[in-house]
Amino acid sequence: MRVRKRAGAPELVAAHPEFVVAEPTEWKGRWHERFGNDHPIHIEIGMGKGQFITGMAKTNPDINYIGIEMQISVVSIALDKLIAEEIPNVQLLHVDGSALTNYFADHEVDQIYLNFSDPWPKTKHEKRRLTSKAFLAVDEQIIRPNGEIHFKTDNQGLFEYSLASFSQYGMRLKQVWLDLHTSTYEGNIMTEYEEKFSNRGQRIYRVEAQFVSEEK
Amino acid sequence: MRVRKRAGAPELVAAHPEFVVAEPTEWKGRWHERFGNDHPIHIEIGMGKGQFITGMAKTNPDINYIGIEMQISVVSIALDKLIAEEIPNVQLLHVDGSALTNYFADHEVDQIYLNFSDPWPKTKHEKRRLTSKAFLAVDEQIIRPNGEIHFKTDNQGLFEYSLASFSQYGMRLKQVWLDLHTSTYEGNIMTEYEEKFSNRGQRIYRVEAQFVSEEK
Ligand SMILES: C[S@@+](CC[C@H](N)C(=O)[O-])C[C@H]1O[C@@H](n2cnc3c(N)ncnc32)[C@H](O)[C@@H]1O
Ligand SMILES: C[S@@+](CC[C@H](N)C(=O)[O-])C[C@H]1O[C@@H](n2cnc3c(N)ncnc32)[C@H](O)[C@@H]1O
Repeated sequence: MRVRKRAGAPELVAAHPEFVVAEPTEWKGRWHERFGNDHPIHIEIGMGKGQFITGMAKTNPDINYIGIEMQISVVSIALDKLIAEEIPNVQLLHVDGSALTNYFADHEVDQIYLNFSDPWPKTKHEKRRLTSKAFLAVDEQIIRPNGEIHFKTDNQGLFEYSLASFSQYGMRLKQVWLDLHTSTYEGNIMTEYEEKFSNRGQRIYRVEAQFVSEEK
Repeated sequence: MRVRKRAGAPELVAAHPEFVVAEPTEWKGRWHERFGNDHPIHIEIGMGKGQFITGMAKTNPDINYIGIEMQISVVSIALDKLIAEEIPNVQLLHVDGSALTNYFADHEVDQIYLNFSDPWPKTKHEKRRLTSKAFLAVDEQIIRPNGEIHFKTDNQGLFEYSLASFSQYGMRLKQVWLDLHTSTYEGNIMTEYEEKFSNRGQRIYRVEAQFVSEEK
């Protein structure tokens, strides 16, 4: 995602450690303490401007959400939403999704969302895709046994790749949607990218893929 | 597939036992003898009018093809093509694809094709879909270890269902195409249904799914 640098973003983020976690390694294994409850923890990797995660958090007050995003200007836009609405069950991490084992203990996460991840269409960039093998290995380490990744995208090539990648990793595809917005799926919460691409007439793909613990 | 009854179809089929196998149970475990060589055996279940299997057979003379179709009028139309072209590496079976263990020994088949299988969209008809669990169990019994099913369809609902069904059966998706005709896939041989639906502007889906023998 190309976002113009936002003046003052680092300062805004630094001024709100109650929302953007300042020392995320310190909370590894202790996220329940931070939230002050034992609710399940769902994370979104590459959350962008935060419309999805804040929408989910408002709809599901009994789930704790952690949004992960490596661009600080984008984090600061998601932060605006948390400040404006004072949503208690969302925390943001300004970190790289490839290093999540630094911030989460084994099996500490209940569910993972990936939405409109950067497609990296060139074969030589395959390793940068958030659905590639090395990212799935990190995800598997931090997610609970039989945990699920829920993935949405408009990008046909990335979706084709990801279905095969999940499957070859040994994950089970629980359900696949080849045109989410004309389907019977209920309660969809749109991301910023989803609104943009569906307004252009693109179809939206979705899959729920599950890690299978007997196999490992 | 709705096909008008073709007058004389049973007689035509009966007159050509060299192409439409009269006693298929007798060849169980002995198909290599019937073909007179040790080439791999590929089968198509629900072959319809035979354009795909005859096209594949002409392109790949070192593979033996067996087309399976339960409607005799349709079998007779495929038979017309074999008579006209005298294709040596195709045999036809006028049988039901749910009973294939009667006609093939364990692991006798190298690869399975499913093309534009009847979608049976109602949930109560799920068991009739050729990609449902019970059919996959039959396929797994007759196919070689790590054998593959190659499946094409225009039907979005059947494709969504089948990706999940293959995966939940424990198969691995090797590759997925969400718009075959605009992809880089080479050597595609069109079926009768594929021509009809792609002429109407429908996109064609394709998947290669592999049985995984360690898991069983
Ligand atoms: C195309 S945007 C989509 C944003 C949002 N999910 C949406 O659907 O509107 C992808 C986002 O993922 C972030 N991203 C990409 N790779 C990442 C990584 N390894 N760790 C954290 N964030 C990442 C990018 O900075 C960008 O904001
Ligand atoms: C929609 S047509 C497609 C025909 C062809 N594959 C094509 O793509 O043009 C499906 C065909 O599968 C056959 N079929 C359906 N279920 C079958 C079964 N259990 N065993 C054998 N043939 C079956 C039908 O009779 C029909 O001819």
